[in-house]
Amino acid sequence: MADRIKLGMVGGGRDAFIGGVHRMAARLDDQFELVAGALSSTPEKSLASAADIGIAADRAYGDYKAMAIREARLKDGIEAVSIVTPNHMHANVAKEFLRRGIHVICDKPLTGTLSEAKALVKAAEKSGALFVLTHNYTGYPMVRQARQMVADGDLGDIRLVQAEYPQDWLSTKLEDTGLKQAEWRTDPARSGTGGAIGDIGTHAYNLACFVSGLTLDSLAADLDTFVDGRMLDDNAHVMMRFNGRAKGMLWASQVAPGNENALRLRVYGTKGGLEWSQEDPNYLWYTPLGEPKRLITRGGAGSNDAAARVSRIPPGHPEGYLEGFATIYTEAATAIRAARDGQAAPAEVVYPTVQDGLAGVAFVDACVRSSKRNGAWVNV
Amino acid sequence: MADRIKLGMVGGGRDAFIGGVHRMAARLDDQFELVAGALSSTPEKSLASAADIGIAADRAYGDYKAMAIREARLKDGIEAVSIVTPNHMHANVAKEFLRRGIHVICDKPLTGTLSEAKALVKAAEKSGALFVLTHNYTGYPMVRQARQMVADGDLGDIRLVQAEYPQDWLSTKLEDTGLKQAEWRTDPARSGTGGAIGDIGTHAYNLACFVSGLTLDSLAADLDTFVDGRMLDDNAHVMMRFNGRAKGMLWASQVAPGNENALRLRVYGTKGGLEWSQEDPNYLWYTPLGEPKRLITRGGAGSNDAAARVSRIPPGHPEGYLEGFATIYTEAATAIRAARDGQAAPAEVVYPTVQDGLAGVAFVDACVRSSKRNGAWVNV
Amino acid sequence: MADRIKLGMVGGGRDAFIGGVHRMAARLDDQFELVAGALSSTPEKSLASAADIGIAADRAYGDYKAMAIREARLKDGIEAVSIVTPNHMHANVAKEFLRRGIHVICDKPLTGTLSEAKALVKAAEKSGALFVLTHNYTGYPMVRQARQMVADGDLGDIRLVQAEYPQDWLSTKLEDTGLKQAEWRTDPARSGTGGAIGDIGTHAYNLACFVSGLTLDSLAADLDTFVDGRMLDDNAHVMMRFNGRAKGMLWASQVAPGNENALRLRVYGTKGGLEWSQEDPNYLWYTPLGEPKRLITRGGAGSNDAAARVSRIPPGHPEGYLEGFATIYTEAATAIRAARDGQAAPAEVVYPTVQDGLAGVAFVDACVRSSKRNGAWVNV
Amino acid sequence: MADRIKLGMVGGGRDAFIGGVHRMAARLDDQFELVAGALSSTPEKSLASAADIGIAADRAYGDYKAMAIREARLKDGIEAVSIVTPNHMHANVAKEFLRRGIHVICDKPLTGTLSEAKALVKAAEKSGALFVLTHNYTGYPMVRQARQMVADGDLGDIRLVQAEYPQDWLSTKLEDTGLKQAEWRTDPARSGTGGAIGDIGTHAYNLACFVSGLTLDSLAADLDTFVDGRMLDDNAHVMMRFNGRAKGMLWASQVAPGNENALRLRVYGTKGGLEWSQEDPNYLWYTPLGEPKRLITRGGAGSNDAAARVSRIPPGHPEGYLEGFATIYTEAATAIRAARDGQAAPAEVVYPTVQDGLAGVAFVDACVRSSKRNGAWVNV
Repeated sequence: MADRIKLGMVGGGRDAFIGGVHRMAARLDDQFELVAGALSSTPEKSLASAADIGIAADRAYGDYKAMAIREARLKDGIEAVSIVTPNHMHANVAKEFLRRGIHVICDKPLTGTLSEAKALVKAAEKSGALFVLTHNYTGYPMVRQARQMVADGDLGDIRLVQAEYPQDWLSTKLEDTGLKQAEWRTDPARSGTGGAIGDIGTHAYNLACFVSGLTLDSLAADLDTFVDGRMLDDNAHVMMRFNGRAKGMLWASQVAPGNENALRLRVYGTKGGLEWSQEDPNYLWYTPLGEPKRLITRGGAGSNDAAARVSRIPPGHPEGYLEGFATIYTEAATAIRAARDGQAAPAEVVYPTVQDGLAGVAFVDACVRSSKRNGAWVNV
Repeated sequence: MADRIKLGMVGGGRDAFIGGVHRMAARLDDQFELVAGALSSTPEKSLASAADIGIAADRAYGDYKAMAIREARLKDGIEAVSIVTPNHMHANVAKEFLRRGIHVICDKPLTGTLSEAKALVKAAEKSGALFVLTHNYTGYPMVRQARQMVADGDLGDIRLVQAEYPQDWLSTKLEDTGLKQAEWRTDPARSGTGGAIGDIGTHAYNLACFVSGLTLDSLAADLDTFVDGRMLDDNAHVMMRFNGRAKGMLWASQVAPGNENALRLRVYGTKGGLEWSQEDPNYLWYTPLGEPKRLITRGGAGSNDAAARVSRIPPGHPEGYLEGFATIYTEAATAIRAARDGQAAPAEVVYPTVQDGLAGVAFVDACVRSSKRNGAWVNV
Repeated sequence: MADRIKLGMVGGGRDAFIGGVHRMAARLDDQFELVAGALSSTPEKSLASAADIGIAADRAYGDYKAMAIREARLKDGIEAVSIVTPNHMHANVAKEFLRRGIHVICDKPLTGTLSEAKALVKAAEKSGALFVLTHNYTGYPMVRQARQMVADGDLGDIRLVQAEYPQDWLSTKLEDTGLKQAEWRTDPARSGTGGAIGDIGTHAYNLACFVSGLTLDSLAADLDTFVDGRMLDDNAHVMMRFNGRAKGMLWASQVAPGNENALRLRVYGTKGGLEWSQEDPNYLWYTPLGEPKRLITRGGAGSNDAAARVSRIPPGHPEGYLEGFATIYTEAATAIRAARDGQAAPAEVVYPTVQDGLAGVAFVDACVRSSKRNGAWVNV
Repeated sequence: MADRIKLGMVGGGRDAFIGGVHRMAARLDDQFELVAGALSSTPEKSLASAADIGIAADRAYGDYKAMAIREARLKDGIEAVSIVTPNHMHANVAKEFLRRGIHVICDKPLTGTLSEAKALVKAAEKSGALFVLTHNYTGYPMVRQARQMVADGDLGDIRLVQAEYPQDWLSTKLEDTGLKQAEWRTDPARSGTGGAIGDIGTHAYNLACFVSGLTLDSLAADLDTFVDGRMLDDNAHVMMRFNGRAKGMLWASQVAPGNENALRLRVYGTKGGLEWSQEDPNYLWYTPLGEPKRLITRGGAGSNDAAARVSRIPPGHPEGYLEGFATIYTEAATAIRAARDGQAAPAEVVYPTVQDGLAGVAFVDACVRSSKRNGAWVNV
């Protein structure tokens, strides 16, 4: 790709996990070139991390604000920035870039608190720059397939949405062992008000809405902390009522042994049902009511244009997490190129936005509120 | 088996489904001989049905009460009776036999209402005869395996119980098409206060308690009727709090396309997790925390005595629904033989009892109460 | 069932495995009544075993020949006999009953040697009595479904048949540990010329032909004995050429760790493909060429009459090995009842016969011949 | 990565499939920079294709030989070249680069004929440049895991290797419809002597040897062309004898409806068994003899260093085909960097080489020879 989009990154230095994922995702389809970074919270570590990954010394910053200021002035400065810090920093970092017209690609959840999220939405709206939220599971081809099938009416009127995201890695008090990932994800100061519900429940919620096309009306939640001394929830049970007649359940857990990233979505309507699992992402189970269950494979017979648009290789050759993640980046690139010409992105570009991010934080907020009121139904 | 137990049956005539299942279950291990029956609600149909299945004419009754009276007086009269009528009749039928000292094997749910259930428990306690409730899923070998593993502490302290039983057969208004099964199961007069929650939710609930060994403290339920004009719930979402710290969710549905009898149980504790699915009953997934997931097969390596006791054939040769059902009958036989000698059944006989039946009806009652109060937490 | 067929049994005493299976299978659909037996090779054990299972003392025989003679003379003597001895005895036992007009239900393989098999076919043809061979896997509903689909042309012209039956139980020299099952199955004197190829390869071969409707023309086989000192093959690789253009492979093994009874059949034609696994017998995978794969469940949408005819319970409630076995018995009963009136059994009765048994022994014989000639192609 | 290796590409222009895969694979881990190309067989198309993917005009060549000559002279010329042409061109193209000391990364099979393969091995040995063959399935983490487990003795002595690679895309005469992929893959002039056996059978064979560590001694093959008028085999059955006692079977097919890229490997030894499927590559099934089957996931409990070394993201987040392919590239980069210093690559770098390529072509050659001799055993 001759015309790669110049990209910067905030966060994602040594020891971080998700930064490397973003970089691979940005690279896969050759739409971006990572040229600048403020990769860590200390200048020394930032610069060393930049050197590790081949960012030129004069584009390695010790501090994200300095980066925003200078890059905005450079003739060939970054056109977009990836924000891969812990949640509590998203808003402040994003605003610095947004106000300078630099497009933002931001990890989820949008922010740690609802008020921050609302403020960030305003900042994004005011800026005119694009805001892409990496709810990466929406990039899986069979998730796109499912969404399109629902939109096409293949399932009839949606009645039920069952979403779950169990993990087991926090079954013990891992945050006391020095594991950085466990530390910040269980720390309210850095993660926000939600633990499991924020870290993975928002993914399940976002996916449920993305595929079903439904909007949540109210919920009743029962959050728990099973590991003694943990500061945030590590298990969440939620009952949901969507606008219209549809209902659903959502389960997020970090204490369910035998589950790695077992995000699973099931959607049932008057005419059929769909089932999808993140750990086996190239398959979509579809049952038209009264017919045999069908296994639709990515790119195989029965797979649709929505899936094909975000596929890279033939059926039977699995695509995975990074490919889905890369699709968000590639759609961001498409939108950025359109924005250069003052155009909206094409309709098929459906990456999650700052509004979806707000919806996710509002969901967490509602879960926390409901749980504090002993699981009373609350509006979202 | 030279010494088969003489058995009668009430219900299960022509057009019925579950009666035939009970007869196959009673026959498989050769512990019972079906010698008498009042198989239908009209005398003509009763007698014709009896002739169909080889019950001698002088033991075919037009009416269950006549059968109870005469069989109790016969020198070689029945020692036990299977009750396979619609739910609303269970209590009255059972009482006629219990009061005459005839052991009762009764289909679930125990009764249609909580007050009937309580009265029946009293009748059973007063009688001294045995009362066996055919929550047949408890008879599957890998369910026994799971229960034993929990009891042995293999999972540590139980934290989570996820139970679900989705079906799809009532996705449309089948009860208007003349299908008898659909008619009575959606009719409050014959089924009781619960629809899906009573018919299949009680199975999931019973299984959850049977395996986990937990007792439910309170629940919050959101029952729904998605098919217009239907008189009972066809979908139920339930959040559960057990005594101690464990929590859970339960989903029962008759409107989820692509699901036949997809009863599934997952139990997670501090030390490990278990997953079991009724449609693939010979497998139990076990994950000791921090170790690879293991597939334990019925009779295979890692399967325990609790499973072996109720298995008939070698691993890799699947046993199914009828075999699990037969195990309840065979345990009933063991208990009946012990009772002849004034003995309790051996400890490994763990068939569900009238008390479990009461618990199931109380569960349905609590779900209905909670749902009417907009999902408030209610005690069970 | 008022009119149960009087059945005798030869073999199946204490310590035997398959005898108990036959008895459960005979009992399940209530078509037979076991009234006589010569259950073991010694009179004492025979009589004790008979008492165990409730056979009256005057119908318990110490010797199969005595049983044949007396039962044939009794007014109410047996109408059919089940032969569940080791393979080498099948022929002699069967002939004693056949010559007296008593129908034979015989375990597989038919005999230990090809010459015995041929002689037995003649004896059966001469007798006029029925001969039912319990290749029980043909009784699974989804196997019937598959066979019917092939016959209906759903797969077009068959090109490929892939059959396999791996086990692991003989990975070590179990026959030296005193396990009776392992002893006789690895003993040429009792099993015949084939080890794995005879015990389980014949099942796979029978199933391949039963479903595909093809006749084998020639084969090339590579038999092996991996466990030192074992007297028969414990692994068999076979390439097959059927009449017409179809080809196939067959693998049978007793030394493949992780396999219990992993019999699996795959059939591919010009228009579609089918896949079935014995360990998950209620599922049939069907792919019409160019369409998504479909999961057909027993009794579910897309399942056909051939499956329904041999099903007992609704979809989603698994039937297993015993049910499939019982179907062979029930079809035998149907044929016996027809024979009483001088009628042939209805066309849908398709249990394996003595001719199928001969085909199986001929298959083993051809495999042994080919393997001795270094895998040369030989006619079957 | 500051120091990306300069890479050229031959083949992979518009309409090609595998070229794009190689480019994504080269890009993912940021070890290579694609700077030159001779992407198609006509100069116009080559140049247009180069422009498409951002190769500078002065590094876009109309002809691979011109590219080899000029790049070898450039100060900043390519250090390695990817060859992604149809099979018949591999040898000639590779030689031009090898003789100029440019490392070769070449698609499989190595060549279309055995004599070409032998000549190419000599050219590679003489050159001193590295030769990497993209048998990409060897790059899957769980394949590495399996190989290491075998090497560590976890399976004991290997007895059996079952390999298969069925597809269905050539079930009809697709090569007559204008599909370029189908045309050249069924054309002996471009593919060589093997059809399915060369295109996918070699993958299965390579994988079998890579994991088991075994060397093939002899084989008996039955190749077929089921689609009338096709010029190469579209189905292959092979029986294998390895050095030592191990045996195996291999099935490759392009006419098996319902199979996309269903490459599957099963390895059984005296102490355990392993099963792996390419379509679900993040799972490895491992059964220690006499213990329950274990599901080892990429990066999960029980996964080893060999897998971890080639993994990018946490367990439960699937990696796919491109990631495995990228691992071959990344190992090539490691070897190239070592070679700069005159060092051998570290022992854990195990990409397939020109010798493996020769072994693959020799395997195809032996299959063709055996099949022509009616499946006689031939040495490889």
